[in-house]
Amino acid sequence: MANARLTILGSGSARPTFQNSPSGQILDLCDKSFLIDCGEGVQLTMARMGIRTSRLYNIFISHLHGDHCFGLLGLLSTLSMQGRLQPMHIYAHADLEKLLRPQLDYYCRDMNYEIIFHPINPRKRAVIFEDRTVQVETIPLKHSVPCCGFLFSETHRQPDGEGGFIRVPRQRYAYCSDTLYTEKIIDIVRGVDLLYHESTFLEAQAKLCRTVMHSTAAQAATIALKAQVGQLLIGHYSARVIDHTEFLNEAQVVFPNTLLAREGETIEF
Amino acid sequence: MANARLTILGSGSARPTFQNSPSGQILDLCDKSFLIDCGEGVQLTMARMGIRTSRLYNIFISHLHGDHCFGLLGLLSTLSMQGRLQPMHIYAHADLEKLLRPQLDYYCRDMNYEIIFHPINPRKRAVIFEDRTVQVETIPLKHSVPCCGFLFSETHRQPDGEGGFIRVPRQRYAYCSDTLYTEKIIDIVRGVDLLYHESTFLEAQAKLCRTVMHSTAAQAATIALKAQVGQLLIGHYSARVIDHTEFLNEAQVVFPNTLLAREGETIEF
Repeated sequence: MANARLTILGSGSARPTFQNSPSGQILDLCDKSFLIDCGEGVQLTMARMGIRTSRLYNIFISHLHGDHCFGLLGLLSTLSMQGRLQPMHIYAHADLEKLLRPQLDYYCRDMNYEIIFHPINPRKRAVIFEDRTVQVETIPLKHSVPCCGFLFSETHRQPDGEGGFIRVPRQRYAYCSDTLYTEKIIDIVRGVDLLYHESTFLEAQAKLCRTVMHSTAAQAATIALKAQVGQLLIGHYSARVIDHTEFLNEAQVVFPNTLLAREGETIEF
Repeated sequence: MANARLTILGSGSARPTFQNSPSGQILDLCDKSFLIDCGEGVQLTMARMGIRTSRLYNIFISHLHGDHCFGLLGLLSTLSMQGRLQPMHIYAHADLEKLLRPQLDYYCRDMNYEIIFHPINPRKRAVIFEDRTVQVETIPLKHSVPCCGFLFSETHRQPDGEGGFIRVPRQRYAYCSDTLYTEKIIDIVRGVDLLYHESTFLEAQAKLCRTVMHSTAAQAATIALKAQVGQLLIGHYSARVIDHTEFLNEAQVVFPNTLLAREGETIEF
């Protein structure tokens, strides 16, 4: 069984800092590279890390706040300059296409590849992508704009005893950013190998955290504990907290097997 | 007399590399910070360098290729989140406003500051900004899309002997990116203290260079020599050339007082 690999391209929140860029991750699962969110600078971090943009298979955008999608136009334009031929599928809220089309028409007129937008309904749990080995489901979240996470499952087919087949999941990765603490997601992410849950603030900032509809490190860890996940990865750090070990310490009190998302690092699971 | 300072935020060309981000510079002149071009990641480099975005006075965009303007939306959105009140003036080709407006309307509805677009005609030399101490003129360039450089002059008023005043330039900085080699700019940039001239390729790539309407390091240096400038700064390096000292060596044969633009560095002049 091939391992899954997650590469952190950006682990900050809305305001970039000296140590954090906006959100972006690459999940390598079953020989495919899925890009999850694409804040400004995602293609720059990829270039710094020597990751070829040509290997990207498709793109999932959790919501349309700028720190999760302002890097898309640059990335799509670079793919065009590099002569990509393979279509690029983008799974996102329907407004994304409306916002990007005029610029794509202006900048990528001579594009050799097709961009196919798949509008998703972030409010409803649904399978939005499925092939022979990977399935992706939405995870409805609670944020100030429509927002969902994504559950990636490596699946394999097993005889069902009646001449047919059922899909059995192997590795599973759940991505949950941005959200208020909500126990509604626990059943969806239960038992995943790796859960990424945003942790924008510390408990000391709980009031502000609720106002802007984010989670604290302790809340992320509580979800991990209640859902009995294998590992918890936290990120989307507020610019107000300089020392990220404060997030780690707060989370590990609740759920010891917690990791900090650090830009440029890869996690195998 | 206050020194002028130029900070390099990005010195690469269209394709980002492990060492180069797209174009962006800050010119500090007479207590004002002018942003010149704004490729993707400009606000991220500013954050890494600890430069406050709030200090930006206004913005000049040479042309609408993505590596010179894809960072604008993120920057303007960050300024909005930071509560900027002071209007931001953007000097660029008229199409920029058409392209950005739908996204600004979507992302910055609650903006407290005004963005004022000043359409410029890149084909005509003209004064596009003037206050008590600084004047900015366009420098028509030859590129695959309408493109102009900018000549920044610190000016002071001197009696003209007839009871009036004339403006006398002190420090002058000329920014020329992107362009084919063109001697038409020599008269405009003659004698400036610092000339930035793009140097995307080396002479060994002269044919490709002409096709994509850029300049070589030797050509940039020839302009500097013929215009008798104080110092030459080169940048906008192609991703094909890994070792930037090759650009420097080629330019210095023609014009010894040449510097390489390096991201994160500041030049005083």
